[in-house]
Amino acid sequence: MTTTINDTIIALSTPKGQGAIGVIRLSGQNAISIVDKYFKGENLLKSTGNTVHYGKLVDEDNNIIDECLATVFCAPRSYTKENVIELSCHGSPYIINKVIELFLKNGVRYAEPGEFTMRAFLHGQLDLSQAEAVSDLIASTTASQHQIAMHQLRGGVSKMIQELRAKLIKFASLIELENDFGEEDVEFADRTELKTLVNDTQKVIADLRQSFSFGNAVKEGIPTAIVGSPNVGKSTMLNALLNENKAIVSDIAGTTRDVIEDTLNIDGILFRFMDTAGLRQTEDTVENIGINRTYETIEKSQIIIYVAELEEDYANIVHEFSSLNLDKKKQVIICLNKSDLFAVCDKIDIEEAVSTSTGRTKTISISAKNQTDIEKVKSLLLEMARSNTNHQSDVVLSNARHFEALNNTYESLELVLNGLDTGIPSDLIATDIRHALHHLGTISGE
Amino acid sequence: MTTTINDTIIALSTPKGQGAIGVIRLSGQNAISIVDKYFKGENLLKSTGNTVHYGKLVDEDNNIIDECLATVFCAPRSYTKENVIELSCHGSPYIINKVIELFLKNGVRYAEPGEFTMRAFLHGQLDLSQAEAVSDLIASTTASQHQIAMHQLRGGVSKMIQELRAKLIKFASLIELENDFGEEDVEFADRTELKTLVNDTQKVIADLRQSFSFGNAVKEGIPTAIVGSPNVGKSTMLNALLNENKAIVSDIAGTTRDVIEDTLNIDGILFRFMDTAGLRQTEDTVENIGINRTYETIEKSQIIIYVAELEEDYANIVHEFSSLNLDKKKQVIICLNKSDLFAVCDKIDIEEAVSTSTGRTKTISISAKNQTDIEKVKSLLLEMARSNTNHQSDVVLSNARHFEALNNTYESLELVLNGLDTGIPSDLIATDIRHALHHLGTISGE
Repeated sequence: MTTTINDTIIALSTPKGQGAIGVIRLSGQNAISIVDKYFKGENLLKSTGNTVHYGKLVDEDNNIIDECLATVFCAPRSYTKENVIELSCHGSPYIINKVIELFLKNGVRYAEPGEFTMRAFLHGQLDLSQAEAVSDLIASTTASQHQIAMHQLRGGVSKMIQELRAKLIKFASLIELENDFGEEDVEFADRTELKTLVNDTQKVIADLRQSFSFGNAVKEGIPTAIVGSPNVGKSTMLNALLNENKAIVSDIAGTTRDVIEDTLNIDGILFRFMDTAGLRQTEDTVENIGINRTYETIEKSQIIIYVAELEEDYANIVHEFSSLNLDKKKQVIICLNKSDLFAVCDKIDIEEAVSTSTGRTKTISISAKNQTDIEKVKSLLLEMARSNTNHQSDVVLSNARHFEALNNTYESLELVLNGLDTGIPSDLIATDIRHALHHLGTISGE
Repeated sequence: MTTTINDTIIALSTPKGQGAIGVIRLSGQNAISIVDKYFKGENLLKSTGNTVHYGKLVDEDNNIIDECLATVFCAPRSYTKENVIELSCHGSPYIINKVIELFLKNGVRYAEPGEFTMRAFLHGQLDLSQAEAVSDLIASTTASQHQIAMHQLRGGVSKMIQELRAKLIKFASLIELENDFGEEDVEFADRTELKTLVNDTQKVIADLRQSFSFGNAVKEGIPTAIVGSPNVGKSTMLNALLNENKAIVSDIAGTTRDVIEDTLNIDGILFRFMDTAGLRQTEDTVENIGINRTYETIEKSQIIIYVAELEEDYANIVHEFSSLNLDKKKQVIICLNKSDLFAVCDKIDIEEAVSTSTGRTKTISISAKNQTDIEKVKSLLLEMARSNTNHQSDVVLSNARHFEALNNTYESLELVLNGLDTGIPSDLIATDIRHALHHLGTISGE
C-alpha cells in the first residue's frame, strides 16, 4: 500500500442505483488538479478547502457530462488527510459511469474496497480499531450495533488499550532498567508490586474478553435456540416470532432436520433464532444427525426457548426438560404451547408448577399457532439480553481480531507471571512483556 | 404548493442501501437553524454558504447519531434558492433513518417526490421543461438519452420555445394595437407578412413535433418489430440480439403468442425489440389474437426485422413479404435465417435476388441459432436509427406533455390562419394568438 500511496483513487461513495444525487470521491495528491482540468466553473486549485463549487464536468472532447457540485478538501483537512474532492452529480448510473471512466482514463485508479479508510489510517487520522469501526458502523442495522460501532469509532476501544499499554510499558521500563545494570543484581521493580500490576491488567483483559461474547452477539445476533421434543410446535414458534413462514411446518413429527436460522430485531437488539430438530430416540439416521446438531446448537446458544406442549400432567414436561440437563448459566424460557386448548386458570397453575419444579422462573404459556402471548416471549427475550450487558467497563469488543489479540496478550502475561514466580532472569521477563505489548498494539495498529 | 412553501423539507438524496456515505438534504427557511440545534461543531448559522463543516449529529438526549459533514448553502445561492443543508452521513440505513426521524420530529416535513426540483422551479431557478429534464437525466441509461436530457436541462427546448413566443408576441401586439384604435379600421399589421410569420412558426413547430418521434424513441427505445411466418426463427432472432433466453423457442410453429418485448442498448442507442406471433392462416383463436397484435405492432414500429427462411426458391420469400404490404416509410431489414445450411455464394445470390424483387435494399442472411452475422444486423439497425435523426433543429422533444402542448399551439395557429383568410375581426384573431401563446407557455411553465 505504501508504494502506491502517492496515486489518486476514485470511487462512488454513495450506494449504487438511481437517486437525486450520487457522490464520487477522489483522494490523492493530484485529486484537485485532475478534476480541475475537466471542471468548467471556478478554479478549484485556488480553493482554500472545505468549500463547494458549482460547475460543468466535461469530457476530453468538451462535451458536458453533467452539471455538478465539487466539494474541495485540502490536505490535511480531509478524511484521508490527502487532497480530496467530492463530486455531487445527478444520480444517474449512466452519468456516474461516464465520470468515473473519464478519470480512470486520466491517471486515476479505482479504489480498493475500504481504501479511503485505509488511507485515513495510514495517515494517522484513525487508528486501526477506529478504521475497522467504520465498516461496522455502515453495516449496523440495530441500535445496539450502532452504539458499539460508534463507541469504537470514537476511540473507546483504543483508549482502553492505550491505558493497558501505558501500564505495561512502565512495567517493562523498570525491568529493562535492571537489565542495563547487568550482573549487578539490582531490583528496581518490586516483584510483588509487579505481580499485582500484571494481575490487574489480566483482569481488565478478562473483562474485555468477556464483553466480546456480548459484542459479538450484538453484531451477529444473540444466539437463541428453539428446542423441544418433536411436534410440540418449535417451527410454528419460529414463524410466530419472525411473523413469516420461514420453517416448514407439518403435523409429521421430525419435519425439521436442518437447523433453520433467522434474525429478528427486537427493540434495537438483534436475536439469531435457531429452530432445531425435535429431541427423541429415533432410528432415522438423518434425523439423528439433526438431533446431534441440536445439542451443538444448545451449546453455543445464550438463550434457550424450550417449547413443550401444555398438559395437565406437568410432571412429563418437567421430566423431559430436566433430562436435557442444561448448563445452569443458560438463560431459558419455557414456552408451554397450544395454550388455546386450556382454560386461563389451569394455564396459570401449570405454569407455576413447571416453574417451581424445574427451577426456571421464566415459564409462560403461549399459542404459537394463534400468535397468542408471543409479545410476552419477546419481552422476556429483551429482558434477558439486557441483563447480560453488565460489564466492568463500558467498552464492548465486537471484533474477532481484537478478541484474538487480547487472548494472545493474556497468554504472554501468563508467561510473565510464571517468570516472576520461578525467578527467571529479568531479560526473559522483559521479552514476554514486549510480546504482550506487541499483541496489544495490533489492535490499534501501532 | 405555494401555501406550504415556507416549511422545511427533508429527503435522502442518494440511493437507498449501504454505502460509504449517504446524503440527506434539507431545504427551507429554517433548514440551517433546525440542523444547527443538533449539530455539535462549528456554528452553522454563521456560515457564509457553500462551505463544509465537520461535526457530530446528536439526538434530543445528546446521544451521538453520527459524525458527519454539513454543507451549507445560503438562499438564494442553492439548488432550490432556499436555505439548503446537505448532511453527508455514514451510509448506514440505520443512521440515515435515525437522522431523518430526528428532523421529522422537529418541524421538518418529508419531501414529496421531486419536491426539491419543484421548489427550484417555483423560485425561478429552472423553468418547467428544465425541471422535467432533471428526472429524465437521472433515469438516462444510454448516451442519446443523456444527451437529450442534458440539452433540455441546459435550456435547449426552453430557448426554442422562447424564440417562438417572442415572434408570436410581436405579432399579437400589432394586432392588439389595431384593436385599440377600435373602429378606425387601421391595419398596422400587414396581413401577408403576418401569414408568412404564422406559416414559419407552424413549420418550426412541425419540425419539433417530428423530433418527438425520435426523442420518444430514444427515451423508450426505437420500436423494432420482429416479424415473419411461423417457425422461421423469430424468437431465436430476439434471443440472439439480446444474447439471452428471453423468448421461449420450440420447433412447434406458433409457440409465441404474446408480443414479447425487451430493450437493448446498441452503441448508445436504445432499441425496443418486439417478438411477434408468426403470420399465417389459423383456426386457433388465441393464435389469431396474437396475429392481430402482430399487425398492431408493425403499425407502431419504426423498424421491421422481417425474418424468413433462406431457400433456393426465393420467389416464395418475396411473395410472403409482399403480401405484408408494408408502409413504404417503414425501415425494413430482411433477415434470411438458417444461413448455416447454405454455401456462401448461394447465400449472396439469394440475398441479391430478394433485395431486387422486394425493393428493400437491406437484405442479409444470418444464422440466429449460431449467432452468425447478428453483429451485421445490429450495424444496420444503428445505421437506420441514425439516418432518422435528421431534424431542422438540434432540439429534440422527448416529453409527451411538450408534444401535446405543441399540438395545441399548432391548432390555435391554424385558427389564426383561417381568421386571416376569412377576414374575421382582429380581436378574435388576437384571442387565437393568445391561446397559442398560452399553450406554448405551458412547456416552460410560464
